[in-house]
Amino acid sequence: MIHTDTIVAMATPAGAGAIAVLRLSGPEAIAIASFIFTSVSGKELAKQKTHTVHLGNIKDGERVIDEALITIFKNPNSYTGEDVVEISCHGSNYIQQEIIQLCLRKGCRMAQAGEFTLRAFLNGKMDLSQAEAVADLIASDSAASHQLAIQQMRGGFSSEIKKLREELLNFASLIELELDFAEEDVEFANRDEFQKLISKITQVLKRLIDSFATGNVLKNGIPVAIVGEPNVGKSTLLNALLNEDRAIVSEIAGTTRDTIEDEISIGGIGFRFIDTAGIRETLDVIEGLGIKKTFEKIEAAQVVIYLFDSEKFQVSGSKFQVEIETIKNKYPLKNLVIVANKVDKLSEEETKQLYVTLSAVEGSSFLLLSAKTKNGVTELQNKLLDFVNTGALRNNETIVTNSRHYDAMLKALEEIIKVQQGIDSGLSGDLLAIDIRQALYYFGEITGEISNDELLGNIFANFCIGK
Amino acid sequence: MIHTDTIVAMATPAGAGAIAVLRLSGPEAIAIASFIFTSVSGKELAKQKTHTVHLGNIKDGERVIDEALITIFKNPNSYTGEDVVEISCHGSNYIQQEIIQLCLRKGCRMAQAGEFTLRAFLNGKMDLSQAEAVADLIASDSAASHQLAIQQMRGGFSSEIKKLREELLNFASLIELELDFAEEDVEFANRDEFQKLISKITQVLKRLIDSFATGNVLKNGIPVAIVGEPNVGKSTLLNALLNEDRAIVSEIAGTTRDTIEDEISIGGIGFRFIDTAGIRETLDVIEGLGIKKTFEKIEAAQVVIYLFDSEKFQVSGSKFQVEIETIKNKYPLKNLVIVANKVDKLSEEETKQLYVTLSAVEGSSFLLLSAKTKNGVTELQNKLLDFVNTGALRNNETIVTNSRHYDAMLKALEEIIKVQQGIDSGLSGDLLAIDIRQALYYFGEITGEISNDELLGNIFANFCIGK
Repeated sequence: MIHTDTIVAMATPAGAGAIAVLRLSGPEAIAIASFIFTSVSGKELAKQKTHTVHLGNIKDGERVIDEALITIFKNPNSYTGEDVVEISCHGSNYIQQEIIQLCLRKGCRMAQAGEFTLRAFLNGKMDLSQAEAVADLIASDSAASHQLAIQQMRGGFSSEIKKLREELLNFASLIELELDFAEEDVEFANRDEFQKLISKITQVLKRLIDSFATGNVLKNGIPVAIVGEPNVGKSTLLNALLNEDRAIVSEIAGTTRDTIEDEISIGGIGFRFIDTAGIRETLDVIEGLGIKKTFEKIEAAQVVIYLFDSEKFQVSGSKFQVEIETIKNKYPLKNLVIVANKVDKLSEEETKQLYVTLSAVEGSSFLLLSAKTKNGVTELQNKLLDFVNTGALRNNETIVTNSRHYDAMLKALEEIIKVQQGIDSGLSGDLLAIDIRQALYYFGEITGEISNDELLGNIFANFCIGK
Repeated sequence: MIHTDTIVAMATPAGAGAIAVLRLSGPEAIAIASFIFTSVSGKELAKQKTHTVHLGNIKDGERVIDEALITIFKNPNSYTGEDVVEISCHGSNYIQQEIIQLCLRKGCRMAQAGEFTLRAFLNGKMDLSQAEAVADLIASDSAASHQLAIQQMRGGFSSEIKKLREELLNFASLIELELDFAEEDVEFANRDEFQKLISKITQVLKRLIDSFATGNVLKNGIPVAIVGEPNVGKSTLLNALLNEDRAIVSEIAGTTRDTIEDEISIGGIGFRFIDTAGIRETLDVIEGLGIKKTFEKIEAAQVVIYLFDSEKFQVSGSKFQVEIETIKNKYPLKNLVIVANKVDKLSEEETKQLYVTLSAVEGSSFLLLSAKTKNGVTELQNKLLDFVNTGALRNNETIVTNSRHYDAMLKALEEIIKVQQGIDSGLSGDLLAIDIRQALYYFGEITGEISNDELLGNIFANFCIGK
């Protein structure tokens, strides 16, 4: 598809930094840049080689807006595959706005979200799954999510899908060819090999579909609910977990105040810690609502940390144990860790006592720690990491992280199973072909060999503007 | 000064954008980049020309961190005058951190605030006043502050100061030469021309010093206190002022809640609107504190808008007039605009009545408007702009905006006045020379011909890291 308009957008985040980068893409990109830019050397931009940088002034008529660097990328050797110009200016919002306005006046239009990457896809610079990985890469905030995104962007997943699709397409063609020669009753498609291929595709699809659970968790972080009363040391614990690792923390403010989450990277895996109010039994309506919310959060979590104050165990131990039993009974399959905090305040004898008591009841699913002195924090981190199956990640296997791909593969698998059933029941080639074509369609949707405006619109609307 | 270490920092703001740019500067910049980067073309970075861009992978050993563009600038043709490498990567904070950490492991050190620009200054790429303008340019958020910064960055101010300094230095040398020939009683320095120069310098310094008041206001925005009761329509008025102009608004949250300011650009000039609680007279202690704060804000403002609700004028008009008189008596020299808001709620007859009443008392320093319908908003904008002396800006005259320069010029003027007094009283050359040298010293401080570590430290500490 050839675009006749030239788009412009900021490529760097808003806010004061040393520099900011604007990006133009389209047939007029270099011409528009030449209009507004006078190079110090006096050279004409249009005559410069691709991948060269030029110092000069951005001018609106005689008014100098900024001293800037301009980089030229000539089609097809650019991100979008079109002529691209990057303007690196001083990082003032005012200057950025002025240059954008100037570009708009000279014939650019504002780029829509993801439009640069959309053009890259439409111009064949990357397939759809790679384009989607660009957004994932920008959003990546842990080693795991980063590795998944970069693997997908570099085409690991696409090439696996593409290969299967090509092999299947090959057989589909042969089978359809047979139909043309139906009266002669020939078999161009070797049925044994076809059966082998269908088995292989089934196997690969199942593996990829299975990987989605892991991929989803690794990409979005593992939700951990912390159940515990106020003042039990939740924030100290989070800080202790944080300080053990150079990590990224963000406070993701939800729609309501009580869904504030802290994201911490442990061993390269993102964990999203969700604070809850505890589950003290009560008759009070308001408190009851609080408990309901706590249960909702536990429901959504993959790991539950039950946190209590060791000092209070002697007095409130039985209450704690009731609460722990409640969680276990309600969620028998959840990963639960019982954490006795503030052990620094216990005597050696008391600590030993607590250990013995908990061992008897909880087996090995508990930990004594002090968030304050960081004693036991590493053990908690290791316990959390044990819950994550990082095998596939370590072995560099393809892991599916995108729910659109997951859906398409489920549908493809459904069709492949129909094909298998067709083979088993000796279905005729023309009927097999219908299911094969349908499977091919779903494969094509993943890599974008088959796409439509609505699909593309949905995908790129989630990108930021400028990408 | 030759730097032997290579520095690295982010050059773009933190946060998710399409891309982020890291910058390396120093003798090892290209070597370090070569370590961590494999170009797609297979070309060696070190052998590439200056001002060229290269696509490839940033790798930590075998692990790919990102696909990135690398731009090479070879000394002295770079911002800092050293070898510079810019890495344009995907805008994920995780990726940025990984690349920075990788550069640090390969021998870079983190750049300090402003260190790139400090190196540019030390390597003679710009003088000190130009370097300071870089920070002003990044902070500029209105047409006026932008114009001032870019003029200074492009050397308008420096060259004026440098020219004066050179002429003065020339005379100083001649006078000092006379001292060597003291016994022969010769005059190398023409006293008439010297007198002319001193007069010219005095005149230029006075003009520049005078320009600081304007410059300061244009650079930092004009503080406008809005005095008015709650619900009088302050925020509607601010929005109306804003919508009339493509403008930059920021909520500058101060140390306390009650110093929230809205900055709005009107006609290219920044205005900082400071909300006050009104000045109702009261005996209540708490309320009394509120009034004290209102007066403090009026004190700090250059323009005061007294805003009241037209509908309430019939009932509370006399109270309003007492308050207006209070402001006038306390601050007779402040620019005051009385604004009757919500005139859309009055009948034509009532509006006329209000106009007549206010005209009689306030002359022309009042306005009837409706922030809601935007009727009269343009008139208010014009009134605000009338208070700003933009003559110098329009005529492209040099305007001093930097208080360090202002201080240095005050001191230089003091010395020049002493020189003048010396000439008038027939002081001998050797005594004149002392004052001239001192004046030269202060001139040199402005452009950085004379500087020291403490001075440089103070200046560049205010820069952001990466600049």
